[in-house]
Amino acid sequence: MILTLPALARPLLEPHLPADAEARWFASAEDACQMAPGAEVGWLDMYEARDMVAALERADALKWLNTIYAGIDWMPKDTLARQGVTVTNGAGINAITIAEYVVMGMLTIAKGYREVVRAQDRHEWLRSPPGRLELAETSALILGGGAIGSLVRTRLAAFDVAVTTVRRRPGPGELGTDAWRARLGEFDWVILAAPATAETQGMIGAAELDAMKPDAVLINIARGSVVDQEALVTALTENRIGGAFLDVTTPEPLPSDHPLWTLPNAHVTMHLSGQSQSKMFQRGARLFLDNLARYRSGEPLINAVDLDLGY
Amino acid sequence: MILTLPALARPLLEPHLPADAEARWFASAEDACQMAPGAEVGWLDMYEARDMVAALERADALKWLNTIYAGIDWMPKDTLARQGVTVTNGAGINAITIAEYVVMGMLTIAKGYREVVRAQDRHEWLRSPPGRLELAETSALILGGGAIGSLVRTRLAAFDVAVTTVRRRPGPGELGTDAWRARLGEFDWVILAAPATAETQGMIGAAELDAMKPDAVLINIARGSVVDQEALVTALTENRIGGAFLDVTTPEPLPSDHPLWTLPNAHVTMHLSGQSQSKMFQRGARLFLDNLARYRSGEPLINAVDLDLGY
Repeated sequence: MILTLPALARPLLEPHLPADAEARWFASAEDACQMAPGAEVGWLDMYEARDMVAALERADALKWLNTIYAGIDWMPKDTLARQGVTVTNGAGINAITIAEYVVMGMLTIAKGYREVVRAQDRHEWLRSPPGRLELAETSALILGGGAIGSLVRTRLAAFDVAVTTVRRRPGPGELGTDAWRARLGEFDWVILAAPATAETQGMIGAAELDAMKPDAVLINIARGSVVDQEALVTALTENRIGGAFLDVTTPEPLPSDHPLWTLPNAHVTMHLSGQSQSKMFQRGARLFLDNLARYRSGEPLINAVDLDLGY
Repeated sequence: MILTLPALARPLLEPHLPADAEARWFASAEDACQMAPGAEVGWLDMYEARDMVAALERADALKWLNTIYAGIDWMPKDTLARQGVTVTNGAGINAITIAEYVVMGMLTIAKGYREVVRAQDRHEWLRSPPGRLELAETSALILGGGAIGSLVRTRLAAFDVAVTTVRRRPGPGELGTDAWRARLGEFDWVILAAPATAETQGMIGAAELDAMKPDAVLINIARGSVVDQEALVTALTENRIGGAFLDVTTPEPLPSDHPLWTLPNAHVTMHLSGQSQSKMFQRGARLFLDNLARYRSGEPLINAVDLDLGY
């Protein structure tokens, strides 16, 4: 049984691999391409989507593809489905740090903290606060009821934020995917934590931005594609919403002359939220080893992705 | 009955004052000094402590002194006690925004968010996060079990932070004022939320900083005087602790050449935490009017300060 695995995870995986496993450890995109053919199991995570796709195209014997990322929008899902490849993702691995990042974004915007940072850099003692909002008694809409949405909800509840979650199968007090648009004008925060799928593509466009409160803030920790970014830039430029906290953009990296860098109500965090932790590989390795045992005994895998739904 | 009151609060107070109240509304330090003599009730809040003290010295008929601030370290407490003046403070009015500020400070330090702000200002897409800490599974010591400490505790609990509170009369799971020093090395965060009194003066000095974990962060939203600031600057310079988030300093404002502005592990927030809200005057006015009714009917006042204890 051949496995193509990231060299970074080697110290965490190697001692626990079964005796008959032939592990190939890749440290570069070139390695990954060379090591992909013949592998039954692939964990092909790299920074650039095109590198992962290139390795995947050469993985001619693949039966199980694992990724530490939650989003699988970069994958050729149709091809994988046709070839009968099982895909497992890292949903939940990054959820804690992303949930923390969301609350940090809301607090820093509420208190105008960026201006405090800039004032310290100027050695200037501000006499009055650049932000006067309290999270307490505000309201938030969370689009996406997965691991991240759920952790954001419990954290915001402790700040006395009234949270409404949107999910495909709404429970009590939640909204369905058809019901949230009519309610958009009620929320101070609109938090995008939905997977990037055909259904969520451009889900927040000009109409949705117009429907938001004029001082509401959009938080995107999903994918840039969930937002019509041109419409967002217009809304921010015309101050039709209060601001946007964008961990994700289109494209990534954002070109250095893009207006989102300079708009005073745009907060760009460079897709760092999920990485802002030290346990990603530990958690990913533990999950992979759990799944490897399941795979060998024919049990269903944890975090198996529905390639039709896209998450 | 003469009352000397801040003009800023006039719209909130005037419609609710009793018919026999002679209210004098001050808009400047000069006004306050002129309007203080003869007043039975004074609410003399101003930005500068010396202006409040000057007005207070002229308040020759004062029976009740009210302040919106929680800290009364600026007051001539012995004189007030000798003259039998009742003092009420604003404990709780700023507690929500200060608790939010504390969590913001912890999150921004955990994620290295200042570096993200600076990178956005340079239009630079960071490839790896400047901070990789999760609040989850860290531990915090809160010195001070008042309104702020209590709100910080509930918020941090939602982030899975293990919180230990220190107070004069410890309850179950809390530490007394004599027990925390021996435990200092156990905590990732040490949060100062105690009043500035003779007892807490310089409470965190070289010995306490040395006893902290080398990566622990000190958060001070109490008063600058609670910390031996020279010892803190030394500890930060020598990286003997991880960092400090300082809403308060000695003196305030901090001189522009002070090392705290430039130390990379010092976060200076200019005593903005309590002001970073829009409801301070509403809350202060409501509390004052409640207390005015109590005062006139001879009931005990809410938030009456113990001038001996200093809070």
